[in-house]
Amino acid sequence: MENIIRNIALQAREASRKMAKASTSVKNRTLELLCQYLESDKSYIQSENARDVTGAKERGLSDAMVDRLTLSDRVVDAMIEGVRQVAQLPDPVGTIRDMRLRPSGIQVGKMRVPLGVIAMIYESRPNVTVDAAALCLKAGNSVILRGGTEAFYSNQALAKSLQAALEAASLPAEAVQVLPMADRRALPFLLHQEEFIDLVIPRGGEGLIRFVSENSRIPVLKHYKGVCHLYVDADALPEKALAIVMNAKCQRPGVCNALETLLIHKDIASVFLPLAADKLRAAGVVLRGCEWTCSLIPGTDAATEADWPAEYLDLILAVKIVDSMDDAMNHISRFNSGHTESIVTENWSRAWRFIREVDASAVMVNASTRFNDGGELGLGAEIGISTSKLHAYGPMGLEELTTEKFVVFGDGQVRA
Amino acid sequence: MENIIRNIALQAREASRKMAKASTSVKNRTLELLCQYLESDKSYIQSENARDVTGAKERGLSDAMVDRLTLSDRVVDAMIEGVRQVAQLPDPVGTIRDMRLRPSGIQVGKMRVPLGVIAMIYESRPNVTVDAAALCLKAGNSVILRGGTEAFYSNQALAKSLQAALEAASLPAEAVQVLPMADRRALPFLLHQEEFIDLVIPRGGEGLIRFVSENSRIPVLKHYKGVCHLYVDADALPEKALAIVMNAKCQRPGVCNALETLLIHKDIASVFLPLAADKLRAAGVVLRGCEWTCSLIPGTDAATEADWPAEYLDLILAVKIVDSMDDAMNHISRFNSGHTESIVTENWSRAWRFIREVDASAVMVNASTRFNDGGELGLGAEIGISTSKLHAYGPMGLEELTTEKFVVFGDGQVRA
Repeated sequence: MENIIRNIALQAREASRKMAKASTSVKNRTLELLCQYLESDKSYIQSENARDVTGAKERGLSDAMVDRLTLSDRVVDAMIEGVRQVAQLPDPVGTIRDMRLRPSGIQVGKMRVPLGVIAMIYESRPNVTVDAAALCLKAGNSVILRGGTEAFYSNQALAKSLQAALEAASLPAEAVQVLPMADRRALPFLLHQEEFIDLVIPRGGEGLIRFVSENSRIPVLKHYKGVCHLYVDADALPEKALAIVMNAKCQRPGVCNALETLLIHKDIASVFLPLAADKLRAAGVVLRGCEWTCSLIPGTDAATEADWPAEYLDLILAVKIVDSMDDAMNHISRFNSGHTESIVTENWSRAWRFIREVDASAVMVNASTRFNDGGELGLGAEIGISTSKLHAYGPMGLEELTTEKFVVFGDGQVRA
Repeated sequence: MENIIRNIALQAREASRKMAKASTSVKNRTLELLCQYLESDKSYIQSENARDVTGAKERGLSDAMVDRLTLSDRVVDAMIEGVRQVAQLPDPVGTIRDMRLRPSGIQVGKMRVPLGVIAMIYESRPNVTVDAAALCLKAGNSVILRGGTEAFYSNQALAKSLQAALEAASLPAEAVQVLPMADRRALPFLLHQEEFIDLVIPRGGEGLIRFVSENSRIPVLKHYKGVCHLYVDADALPEKALAIVMNAKCQRPGVCNALETLLIHKDIASVFLPLAADKLRAAGVVLRGCEWTCSLIPGTDAATEADWPAEYLDLILAVKIVDSMDDAMNHISRFNSGHTESIVTENWSRAWRFIREVDASAVMVNASTRFNDGGELGLGAEIGISTSKLHAYGPMGLEELTTEKFVVFGDGQVRA
């Protein structure tokens, strides 16, 4: 098996040389062809997907898991629409910035170039196969995809459409490869192909991401979890704070940019907290409060030490009343997952201090944590959100799938 | 020992929070104080350095090694001058770029922030201790330094001056820590502190760098070696090509941006190669040529397969005559170390094709490979050269010791 994996990585590397040279119009044409193939291959893709769904039901997977696995008409259509949007995004490859004339007489700039070969490792949703491949191709890379075992047949079927589109555009089919085995032992071999692979992006549960981080010799961009805080300052406007709390907690509680802990300044707590508690409870949210919160809002569950670092991904909210913004920032810095932190305030100086001093991939003033998303922040589409700081911090779009090399234009200069 | 290392990393993390908030003027004041302390502590530093030098001689280290270890007056003065230059560089922290108003009404930008905690792992030269610490501090980071065992006393002495400067500027002394043990077993423990350390930069021989890459759970920025090529195109001006070859090979043959392989187009070989061979031999360079080269230049050693990937770091040059620029680029892509690649040509289209298609941290036209250096490329000072593509590709200066977070300025916006 090691040889098969090595060969896949080697072929991806070879293909990446051709991808790096492909013009924007050829890459866009490939994506348009992909939309056509996904449309015409739809019934084949769905019949292969049905094999996975049947298998998942037989193995007793939860309804939620089966739902995420299913390529309904709606999901396939959304996948095609996503590819079309990637085709419309500007191509980052080839731009040169910061051209400067140096004292030696050379002109120096930085040119954006593809990373090379990217490995995506993910769990159940087969639509990630197409979303990720489209972004990697547009940025001029090869990609090796390793989806969940439970989506094996779906991913193999989608790979056929992807490779057909590449070939129809005279690009190498090996620019997109889905691992041809469901065997979990393939993963460590893949993570040791540092000679051929430039970046690994794992997407899924904390277990998968830890496994990848601890076993990879290739750089990894990842996020473990999103423990997002909202700090309602003494000078917050209650109605704005309320709208943001409700949106951040309730709009989609199961995602990483949903609110998990609400911090409230003591001077506004007795006004704001009863309002918020009523509305949150009406929306089905269970509160876990600090002692002070419990005394203000009768019937609130007492929070334990396990609540402050918790990523509930559910209609549960930890609530803490703090003495000052410093207390709030200390709490955030202690339990921060590097994902999204937001303050609600009308106070200019505190807003700016929060923006400057809080360490997270997105720091916000008077906005819902739910805005930490590639589309909302203007990246067009995202391949994941990085909560580690190297290379990318926050949503990763096309630009984060590239790097910059120095270019030097001389006329015979030598170093003195 | 694991607990000691963990505690050092934890203290570095705590200190990094204060460093991230330090203003540019406080950071510059620290660097100015450091210059004063290095001056006033000079005799102490040199007496501690003498212990290392004596030890090195006793253990029979080579003269070159002893030379690199010695903190002569000249080296200390250069160190101080280097710190002064870092103080004068613009501070990258706090700049916000690309502020955009999104359809939702939020303003989104990217703010440059320190990375946090950086670990530097290096070999004999103790001046790296001060150079690296100055750059890390200016970029608002904490740094943990782990120099060579043979420079143990020198590095401990330099750490005292560094910590005194931090304290005198009311910054935490733990922002610069030199590991207090010479024990080599400390390194793996350090490389597992991914909870507290954001980046590891190894500098030294290939063995050290491989060890760090294979054992680190923390992202690593590294370069293994520089196998730099110069391609002399059919349309090169011979006198320009000659000056560049001589500079790239002979100015400082022991460094990573020195030329290792010369590729020559067949149409210019019979004119250019005899000229170049004469001049190179006069400078003491030994040629290792392809068959064709050997027939053109009698007395040339025949190159073997081991010569093409070789980083000689010496007055030796591999020479190959190629049929076309495609052959040259194929050779480069096969033996490329991702460091520096240069073409000499007057042909506009081939120059641009070379710039676009060659994959290296610096790609040059009509310029010596020796220009791949932070100072020459305009970064001010460098902490190393990255030949991996994540985060930084090429010389790393202050900007590469920082990252960017998203900042969102709202007025009560929630996600639709």
